[in-house]
Amino acid sequence: MNNTSNQLLVIFGASGDLTARKLIPALYNLYEGGHFPENFAVLGASRSDLTDEEFRKRVVYESPYLKDEVKKKDKDFIKKFADMMFYSDLGSDYDSEYSKLNKRIEALNKEHKLDENYTFYLSTPPSLYEPIAKNLSDQGLTKGSGAEKGFRRIVVEKPFGYSLETAKELNIGLQKYFKEKQIYRIDHYLGKETVQNLMVTRFSNSIFEPLWNRNYIHHVQITNAETVGVEKRGGYYDKSGALRDMFQSHLLQIVSLIVMEPPISADADEIHNEKVKALKSIRMMTEKKDLFENTMKGQYVASSINGKRVKGYREEEGVDPESKTETYGAVKFFVDNWRWKDVPFYVRTAKRMPTKVTEVVIHFKTPHHQVFKEQDVNNKDNKLVIRIQPDEGILIKFGVKVPGQGFKVERANMDFYYSSLSDKNIMDAYERLLLDAMQGDTTLYARADEVEAAWAFVDPILEYWANDKDVPTYGYPAGTWGPKNSDDLIEDSNGWRNPGELLTDETGFCII
Amino acid sequence: MNNTSNQLLVIFGASGDLTARKLIPALYNLYEGGHFPENFAVLGASRSDLTDEEFRKRVVYESPYLKDEVKKKDKDFIKKFADMMFYSDLGSDYDSEYSKLNKRIEALNKEHKLDENYTFYLSTPPSLYEPIAKNLSDQGLTKGSGAEKGFRRIVVEKPFGYSLETAKELNIGLQKYFKEKQIYRIDHYLGKETVQNLMVTRFSNSIFEPLWNRNYIHHVQITNAETVGVEKRGGYYDKSGALRDMFQSHLLQIVSLIVMEPPISADADEIHNEKVKALKSIRMMTEKKDLFENTMKGQYVASSINGKRVKGYREEEGVDPESKTETYGAVKFFVDNWRWKDVPFYVRTAKRMPTKVTEVVIHFKTPHHQVFKEQDVNNKDNKLVIRIQPDEGILIKFGVKVPGQGFKVERANMDFYYSSLSDKNIMDAYERLLLDAMQGDTTLYARADEVEAAWAFVDPILEYWANDKDVPTYGYPAGTWGPKNSDDLIEDSNGWRNPGELLTDETGFCII
Repeated sequence: MNNTSNQLLVIFGASGDLTARKLIPALYNLYEGGHFPENFAVLGASRSDLTDEEFRKRVVYESPYLKDEVKKKDKDFIKKFADMMFYSDLGSDYDSEYSKLNKRIEALNKEHKLDENYTFYLSTPPSLYEPIAKNLSDQGLTKGSGAEKGFRRIVVEKPFGYSLETAKELNIGLQKYFKEKQIYRIDHYLGKETVQNLMVTRFSNSIFEPLWNRNYIHHVQITNAETVGVEKRGGYYDKSGALRDMFQSHLLQIVSLIVMEPPISADADEIHNEKVKALKSIRMMTEKKDLFENTMKGQYVASSINGKRVKGYREEEGVDPESKTETYGAVKFFVDNWRWKDVPFYVRTAKRMPTKVTEVVIHFKTPHHQVFKEQDVNNKDNKLVIRIQPDEGILIKFGVKVPGQGFKVERANMDFYYSSLSDKNIMDAYERLLLDAMQGDTTLYARADEVEAAWAFVDPILEYWANDKDVPTYGYPAGTWGPKNSDDLIEDSNGWRNPGELLTDETGFCII
Repeated sequence: MNNTSNQLLVIFGASGDLTARKLIPALYNLYEGGHFPENFAVLGASRSDLTDEEFRKRVVYESPYLKDEVKKKDKDFIKKFADMMFYSDLGSDYDSEYSKLNKRIEALNKEHKLDENYTFYLSTPPSLYEPIAKNLSDQGLTKGSGAEKGFRRIVVEKPFGYSLETAKELNIGLQKYFKEKQIYRIDHYLGKETVQNLMVTRFSNSIFEPLWNRNYIHHVQITNAETVGVEKRGGYYDKSGALRDMFQSHLLQIVSLIVMEPPISADADEIHNEKVKALKSIRMMTEKKDLFENTMKGQYVASSINGKRVKGYREEEGVDPESKTETYGAVKFFVDNWRWKDVPFYVRTAKRMPTKVTEVVIHFKTPHHQVFKEQDVNNKDNKLVIRIQPDEGILIKFGVKVPGQGFKVERANMDFYYSSLSDKNIMDAYERLLLDAMQGDTTLYARADEVEAAWAFVDPILEYWANDKDVPTYGYPAGTWGPKNSDDLIEDSNGWRNPGELLTDETGFCII
């Protein structure tokens, strides 16, 4: 049938938004795609007082996120899915009622023949990770594949920590009760096909890897741009900021896949080993001078996009009117190893940009010798653009002869889009990651040392930004490509590549 | 205005088919594109007895090759073009009447202020090259830029020779009266944008040249396939064959552009120097064993294509019914230099194939180490396909991750087509080459030593094919990809890449 063992999926925080919006639809898709094991059940757990039926209504029958499916599909088909859902009340504080939960788990295991395989999914604030793990441990629910029959896995959401110190605390807290191999730290960017394809592009093609080093690459740019502002997450975001929210996790994961050496095999631990090595080889910046020259923060200010007024960050609900939290963060860094020495990496992430895009651009060096003098050197360098989202694909910008006399060279595109692979049902990131956890594949989950290595690099930047009075927070009008002086960071490399069009004119820059 | 000096173009063989079909339409396009110099005239010369007006009727007003233009365009515009055409009768044998011709040239020069710049275009059989050159010399018309005011250039058509010996004779014959710099040997493949783009692809892109050597390339395939048979050229073709007709000239020119080292500049002589070096580095085959193992000849036999019976080669008009002339020729060879040692090149050319195509395929080696074991090694190697015609463009076949779990790798295409360059009016090969000759640019013309180096490699194969009784001539049904055993030649490299679809089933093979 498939590789997934019979099991019970226990979701903590089951009455929360993420469960209804992401997890249950992902489970539904797995169900529809025939990826469920023969025996399977989901047990929701949280503080709300719900019956099984009420839970099923909430996440299936009356869920706005499954409306279309419930309407269109055969009633029995939907009922079969909903009937796999169960619920257990955890009381008011996530710190009691675990013996009741344990009994329910045992009962479901027996009734549905789940082979004592339990996956615990923590869709809760990080502060609850350790208490939940401790309580599961107290109930004897954390040890798997020992005296007990089945496996025990724990899946946790990002953000994983707020700093190196807090991330370490979380790891220590979880590792008291679970072995590292049982812990699945979600980074949903790793569930994206295009991110995984970074490894295939590099290691399954003999034409890319020979070029993938300091001899041929001039610099690397990574852009993560969102058009939205902080929306309703102002309160959370103001304590976090762009660097914690995106850079420490998703973007450094992407960096590690670009930087890593070829693993000896596709084994999860071999890949993690190489990724950790990659992250550790990023040159730490601790001196004020380095931090000043190689980082830049910004905040979007009020502007109009398509004739509509858009709030500035400081006016957003839940945001401190004198906030210095960055909605734009850019970092230039080097990787100190044999492959990458002296190749600058430029990574930026921001909200309220002109377009929503995540892409990696490998900028190759100018040909060492110009045979055809006429070409415009700066604009004609080769680029490999890996588009993570949207329009997932790969594109090479290269020089072709302009038709006509002489040898004039112009840039053309050679491109591949994932959408051209017809009949390939691309799994949503959550769907993919859930299934991997259910199958015990940790490849696309972040290992403890990876998370800590990423924090180790980010920590000094965050501290410098938070505590140094000389750090400017540049304003940028909502809907523009960041502060007017954003190219200062990248002046040696001809500026940022801004995909797509600006939605509004840039009106200047200011230090706020 | 433009770079073309005032000049007179003298066409020998002006009453022949090529002049009306190719040269005059090419001139018309140059005229329409504004590429004519301020003062310009064309003087046709041949054995026919024509007046200027009769010549104008023949090649302009009543030419089937300019019918649309004459009909659509402004009358004055056409008249202005036609009025630049003049004619001079050369008598019955191309060997008299040169003093008359000389007087006409002088008169036209004076009347139209042509600055004594003369380009002689020989659209005649090669046997006339030397006699015409001698007569021009006798009239004092061959020396340019000396005591005389203007330049003197001579353009000759292919085939340039029938063997190394005859090619040398032609070169000696021409070089008695013209300096090498004055001689333009046409190879119209060099006028094709995609052929010229081979150099730009290699030398204006930093991503290709590092891969362009024995470390990364497994082998190179070049295919030139035509769907037509010998048409009305049976008599000529039967004395020539595929190797003389296509391989010695066009295909070895393409080989030289793939093999050559980067020239120090785009200067014509620097490029010619590198091309000659490339051709000289092809390993000569002179032993019978080598010739037997590395060459294959074939002839199309009667078949039906799309339900219609198609003649076999030996039934064609003008062809010896026991002819052993090849309509299919394939050669495997090596290039003995630092860059290409041990990389096999496979080149084939044939008539009556399933599709009309000329393409170069660079087959890269399998990645040294298989990280993702699941991939099908043989089919997943990277290929760079350079399509010379039709659908001119470049395509990379590379591995991408198949969406879904694990790391399955499939082949996808990244492609660029010339047709995507909008607004670029691509010059026809003749048009481009004519203009180059008029401007004195020899880059796209074959130099004497190039032609001789190509013949030096081809000569022993032709001699072996002609004189060795053990050489089989394999039959292949018209409309198929050659003899059934054609892959024998290429067995170490997984067979020929056959673009497109077969038009008819292959029905077997036979030695004829």
